[in-house]
Amino acid sequence: MSETAAMLEANAAYVADFSEGNKPMPPARGVAAVVCMDARIHPSEMLGLTLGDAHVIRNAGGRVSDDAIRSLIISSTLLGTKEFIVVHHTDCGMVTFSNDDLRSILAERRGSDASDIDFLPFGDLAQSVRDDIATIRACEHLDQSIPVRGFIYDVDTGALHEVN
Amino acid sequence: MSETAAMLEANAAYVADFSEGNKPMPPARGVAAVVCMDARIHPSEMLGLTLGDAHVIRNAGGRVSDDAIRSLIISSTLLGTKEFIVVHHTDCGMVTFSNDDLRSILAERRGSDASDIDFLPFGDLAQSVRDDIATIRACEHLDQSIPVRGFIYDVDTGALHEVN
Repeated sequence: MSETAAMLEANAAYVADFSEGNKPMPPARGVAAVVCMDARIHPSEMLGLTLGDAHVIRNAGGRVSDDAIRSLIISSTLLGTKEFIVVHHTDCGMVTFSNDDLRSILAERRGSDASDIDFLPFGDLAQSVRDDIATIRACEHLDQSIPVRGFIYDVDTGALHEVN
Repeated sequence: MSETAAMLEANAAYVADFSEGNKPMPPARGVAAVVCMDARIHPSEMLGLTLGDAHVIRNAGGRVSDDAIRSLIISSTLLGTKEFIVVHHTDCGMVTFSNDDLRSILAERRGSDASDIDFLPFGDLAQSVRDDIATIRACEHLDQSIPVRGFIYDVDTGALHEVN
């Protein structure tokens, strides 16, 4: 059985126990979190979220990419979120390669030219959080009264550590 | 107390019970899922994921944006994922506005010009899933032997329904 098929079986069990019913579309706690896609992070457990509490935006690195900005604009402008969180983490894959590394692998394996893609790797974990907060702060489409806090999640302990 | 501060208190409780220790960086079940950021979706519960199982990429709409493609390339090329899932959902905010609607709101509230941003709204839920699968299928940087399945999540019942 494929893993997708196994996940659909798990979903059937989830449905059997599902008692939430529908909830309002705007997040109940008015928070939008940008978090790395890493498999060792379950944002709902990490942050103590109940279904319906917060928007969770995830990508490779938890970077405030143009697409994360798109999502934050929709989240805050149309669905009323009033606090933003950025979460990167220890042992992140994004510090293990450069754009040139990944482009070379793609050229070799796929014969493709990814020279136009910035994969947004980084060297310094705390600085990457600061850079992403600065990207939010520089966005004219976002309400700059919205507080933004940034954290590094420790995959060994489950703890969030704030980046100042 | 801010909601962020309340989430940090929840994180302290999470840490107290955290017994996973670190796990390998590559997702144990080799799956990458693209899912909407909607607050009413907890992907780990919806799919029966244990910490470390799968990459979860999330944005407004669960769209296969350029940034989701960036994340899928990293996920599959560097971290070995071998199955992709795309999940949109019922009662999605992305069907409630047009690019022009949101641009007008931003011009009025912020005085900003978002004419260069495609917010990726859509009209037809099933078609948006098909379009996003097609975007993955058209990407020369992704291994086209990777299976991709698309679903609509029902926020009233918790169920995933496949889009064919």
